[in-house]
Amino acid sequence: MGLIGGSVALALQKAQFVPHIVGVGRTEKSLQQALYLGVINTAETSVEAACNDADLILIAAPVAQTTAILKSIKPHLQSQTVITDVGSTKGDVLDVAREVLGVQFHQFVGGHPIAGAEKSGVSAAKDDLFLGKNIVLTPAAETNMQALASVTQLWQACGGIVREMSAETHDRIFAAVSHLPHLLAFALVDDIASRPNAEELFRFAASGFRDFTRIAGSSPEMWRDISLANKTALISEITTFENELTQLKQLLNNHDGAGLEALFNRASVARNNWANGKK
Amino acid sequence: MGLIGGSVALALQKAQFVPHIVGVGRTEKSLQQALYLGVINTAETSVEAACNDADLILIAAPVAQTTAILKSIKPHLQSQTVITDVGSTKGDVLDVAREVLGVQFHQFVGGHPIAGAEKSGVSAAKDDLFLGKNIVLTPAAETNMQALASVTQLWQACGGIVREMSAETHDRIFAAVSHLPHLLAFALVDDIASRPNAEELFRFAASGFRDFTRIAGSSPEMWRDISLANKTALISEITTFENELTQLKQLLNNHDGAGLEALFNRASVARNNWANGKK
Repeated sequence: MGLIGGSVALALQKAQFVPHIVGVGRTEKSLQQALYLGVINTAETSVEAACNDADLILIAAPVAQTTAILKSIKPHLQSQTVITDVGSTKGDVLDVAREVLGVQFHQFVGGHPIAGAEKSGVSAAKDDLFLGKNIVLTPAAETNMQALASVTQLWQACGGIVREMSAETHDRIFAAVSHLPHLLAFALVDDIASRPNAEELFRFAASGFRDFTRIAGSSPEMWRDISLANKTALISEITTFENELTQLKQLLNNHDGAGLEALFNRASVARNNWANGKK
Repeated sequence: MGLIGGSVALALQKAQFVPHIVGVGRTEKSLQQALYLGVINTAETSVEAACNDADLILIAAPVAQTTAILKSIKPHLQSQTVITDVGSTKGDVLDVAREVLGVQFHQFVGGHPIAGAEKSGVSAAKDDLFLGKNIVLTPAAETNMQALASVTQLWQACGGIVREMSAETHDRIFAAVSHLPHLLAFALVDDIASRPNAEELFRFAASGFRDFTRIAGSSPEMWRDISLANKTALISEITTFENELTQLKQLLNNHDGAGLEALFNRASVARNNWANGKK
């Protein structure tokens, strides 16, 4: 029971999509809070009890826990139950699900809602978190079409825009537009923080630095897991970016003002078009 | 008459620091607007007339225009007048001022207010733009101490915190905390925008990407000028950053989760400490 699971529960309740929502968690505290806030109908610490007669199980936990959670579910997984997840990487999740669920793997649908918030925890959950947001589903060749349809309907009930693609395509896209920017922001702050004059440097950092490095304030554990899970695509992205930096250095070394302005202009136009289109 | 010049004028009026403010500009439109908004007392398109009996001249124009502006002022610069500027790079400005002003160079004080806003133009000017913000002044060996004191008092009247350092130190600091982040953001967006599947990639870019790339929406001309003016420090910063990326790639290749987490953690702690201290 955290931000994502709680927000799905609230959105489904608002849409009157499901008659009963069971929250499952390791700690009593977040479950009691979820009950108190009306996010869930029942709280459960026993996975076995929670799996009983479940139509759909949504795993909304840090990616590193997916294997353990799938293993705890497997012995109690009924044949009519659909399972899905919300992890930021998909290739590794499908591999694990295929391995752990075995012949029941066709009941699993990989998912990734492209939504988040500054705050975490069930108290930050809100019923419109997914409204108009992209939800990527990554069915495998084995995936049951009924299961895929159920998960699609669930996210549509939450207001999301469902997009299907392979796990491999998903991981390549997010290596470029999410994982690489995070690593660049972490790298820049680490670079500056490790210098003898770090204090002086930070004193003069301003609003541009604040926005650029906001994602460097993200959870180190979560980004360790994402980086390792998607390392092949990520290494390839870093290499491409290094080539871009080599080009920039050449333009600077050649004092090529027209070349620099052309590169900055391409970026500026693309960025502003994107931001305006997103509004 | 733009955001910076207009905001200085408003702040000085509010502080009742000066009896008369003359706005000088190339276009009638911004001058008329500044008069209409009460930002300035008199508008002037003649540099000669504006220089007459001036106590202090503040050059608040794109850095690339500094040489031309100094040359236009030089024939009319009286001996009691102090000149200062607000450019984002300082080594190049001091070089140009030394060359153009000759024996009157001691009347010039290089300055850089660390403040800005999303919007530009005199209509965006506000009297509290510099309140609590760092104002870097970069006196040279030749600089007249009276001139430095005048410029210090001007910025303190605007609510700024004046910090003195050499032009070289200034340019090294801002290469790290401002110019490098801008170039990284431009490079990332250019990298993505130039791919065959750019449209698909942008479709899945979310809020982290938005913040990280906000500075890539900045003026290409302005950043061309800054990059060239500070290219030595900037090339050195890019090289240091490339070493940081090499380290990240090694950690990924070695599947070194502990090493990645340690790096992300150093960055995350430093970033959050900085952001909390800035509030």
